[in-house]
Amino acid sequence: MKRIITLTTDFGLSDGFVGVIKGVILSIHPDAMIIDITHDIAPQNIQQGAFVFANAYPYFPPNTIHVVIVDPGVGSTRRPIALQRGETIFVAPDNGILSLGIRDWRLEPRVESPIHAVHLNNPYYWLPRVSSTFHGRDIFSPVAAHLSLGVPIEKMGEPIDDWVRLTQSKQATREGNEIIGQVIHIDRFGNVITNIGKEMFDGMNRDKIVVRIGNQEIRGIKNTYADGEQGEIIALISSAWTLELAVPNGNAANEIGTLIGSVLKVGIDNQ
Amino acid sequence: MKRIITLTTDFGLSDGFVGVIKGVILSIHPDAMIIDITHDIAPQNIQQGAFVFANAYPYFPPNTIHVVIVDPGVGSTRRPIALQRGETIFVAPDNGILSLGIRDWRLEPRVESPIHAVHLNNPYYWLPRVSSTFHGRDIFSPVAAHLSLGVPIEKMGEPIDDWVRLTQSKQATREGNEIIGQVIHIDRFGNVITNIGKEMFDGMNRDKIVVRIGNQEIRGIKNTYADGEQGEIIALISSAWTLELAVPNGNAANEIGTLIGSVLKVGIDNQ
Amino acid sequence: MKRIITLTTDFGLSDGFVGVIKGVILSIHPDAMIIDITHDIAPQNIQQGAFVFANAYPYFPPNTIHVVIVDPGVGSTRRPIALQRGETIFVAPDNGILSLGIRDWRLEPRVESPIHAVHLNNPYYWLPRVSSTFHGRDIFSPVAAHLSLGVPIEKMGEPIDDWVRLTQSKQATREGNEIIGQVIHIDRFGNVITNIGKEMFDGMNRDKIVVRIGNQEIRGIKNTYADGEQGEIIALISSAWTLELAVPNGNAANEIGTLIGSVLKVGIDNQ
Repeated sequence: MKRIITLTTDFGLSDGFVGVIKGVILSIHPDAMIIDITHDIAPQNIQQGAFVFANAYPYFPPNTIHVVIVDPGVGSTRRPIALQRGETIFVAPDNGILSLGIRDWRLEPRVESPIHAVHLNNPYYWLPRVSSTFHGRDIFSPVAAHLSLGVPIEKMGEPIDDWVRLTQSKQATREGNEIIGQVIHIDRFGNVITNIGKEMFDGMNRDKIVVRIGNQEIRGIKNTYADGEQGEIIALISSAWTLELAVPNGNAANEIGTLIGSVLKVGIDNQ
Repeated sequence: MKRIITLTTDFGLSDGFVGVIKGVILSIHPDAMIIDITHDIAPQNIQQGAFVFANAYPYFPPNTIHVVIVDPGVGSTRRPIALQRGETIFVAPDNGILSLGIRDWRLEPRVESPIHAVHLNNPYYWLPRVSSTFHGRDIFSPVAAHLSLGVPIEKMGEPIDDWVRLTQSKQATREGNEIIGQVIHIDRFGNVITNIGKEMFDGMNRDKIVVRIGNQEIRGIKNTYADGEQGEIIALISSAWTLELAVPNGNAANEIGTLIGSVLKVGIDNQ
Repeated sequence: MKRIITLTTDFGLSDGFVGVIKGVILSIHPDAMIIDITHDIAPQNIQQGAFVFANAYPYFPPNTIHVVIVDPGVGSTRRPIALQRGETIFVAPDNGILSLGIRDWRLEPRVESPIHAVHLNNPYYWLPRVSSTFHGRDIFSPVAAHLSLGVPIEKMGEPIDDWVRLTQSKQATREGNEIIGQVIHIDRFGNVITNIGKEMFDGMNRDKIVVRIGNQEIRGIKNTYADGEQGEIIALISSAWTLELAVPNGNAANEIGTLIGSVLKVGIDNQ
């Protein structure tokens, strides 16, 4: 029952934090297979971490253990938690970082299993000496290592059911013929990823769709980057199956002058 | 027959793209060993990707599967391809990114095996749902995973032989007593790597060689960084066995003010 | 006897250097497990590399082989060396990079085993062709791979005992009631890590401690980031068990205007 352990953090790669975490895991479980999803979430940006993680983890095998650490509250009263749904286990601080992934409806299998949650308050599975600034090393990674050895989640702490969900305010809404959404991620290529799922366009004529953001108006939904002209801002469907804005061989975020959190509106051009 | 899968991309490490690719591979082949060559090729820079890959892959075992993705044409009519030479398999978009590596004469064994190429057009080995923006996830990584399980390349698509080679324009040339070359890479230390192979100096007196670049003249080929003075621009042989310009404990690219693509000339000082 | 090989370097991730090193190791030992501690040590910064490595390696299993390469003297007469203490083996250039780790008193087991050191001067365990600029590829990684296969360190070269130790000048000192220390690391969050070990506060009233750095005075030692106000500079104990300065959800290094090497003084407020 080999189980992958994935890591998604804001630790960066320059301080050795990630190496330390792997050392802790391998000291407990020498054959663990550890895979980095990313360590470059912007420092303490829970929303970004939740989005990136939600779009990455469904591509791993179902029995994977996912460790997700963006943890501005480290050392405070915020709880370390683990959630289990089916065979998949999630280990994280209880600050909402898991909640976008857990309720993502686009990538999940239809049948939703119940979620079991525990407060990781059994120090038997921690490192003997716990710092107040690096629970990734002292709590989350030893817990993940023991879970990967087959210790059941129930042994790690007391059951809870009030784990933190991020508010729904970041979901796109429809008002009459207009969809109102937000920029939820800008990737390394400057592509602008929104929270407007492609299913919101069902029944709309894609050629007549108009996207308004900043002082830009983009008409029609293209199929691929190559359908745009050099330098043209185009709309298409992202690999997360949401509306994306891009500039072929360019940087759409710079071109539009947009930021994460910017609002955009999508309507139909009836002229 | 354990086969390593290497990854060379321009995906960066901050968006979770690389984690997703590994998840896809491991979902198909749970014991795959995946090694990153780099994910920091400059976005969509095919020449740089081709150079870095060409100098890295010969150090891997012969039965390795190399996945190389710098793919400005994703979603367009550019073909996804796989090449096999001997036991080595290469998976990439058909845009020339493999061609510098495949014909590198300095690092390759003398005996060249024939190359078999296929157009990856058999969707049986793709993910069931293919986006138009992320073929790394949807086509290249599942294909690589199936190849690592031993599926022969022929099953992945139709044979082709017109895969794209980058033009030879980037190779150094000799005109009389002068060698004309280009800067082909600048590494993180600011060392300036050129495309002038060390064999082009055969028969020349190394102490009398003069390198001209920008408004700099560098005399003689040193053996090591330590043979230069602090702050001095020196010429030596790079780890890719080509002419390199460096400043001991400094940054030669900044000092010279040079960029990738800059021309340099090498002659003999006969004074 | 599976042995992990860790890598700590200043090679960065963009040039493919790290991929090459892994290829060399896996070509010699196909089942090697290679773990990155970090490759983002500032170019040629031996002190930083020594600090990051010293705080990371004790979290790995005792039989690990640690390769540490920050090597401004590559190609010169500086020696490549390997040290063995108990089951742990260290491979590095002989420039002091290992010395902070080897004598770290906070994280080491009490019983110190003797250290065996060798000059890596047996070319049998190198790559056949050695460049003058990339010993990471040509010497250090093949040596590490052979060590991981069980070749004893004595076969790799001649015994030495004059390997380089960094001077003690960077250790904190006590003068009367005042502790004088230095900033030894600034992490990605802007947290300021000093070389003042927490044991230096033994017997002091933590609430009365005053830290002076730049034109800042910080009073008292907090337990966690969450004990500070938004924007307030606080002192607490770092995950390396030394004095740390931080700004909750902010960047202390920017706020204080401090750099690595800056001096700070710690005293008691007797008002």
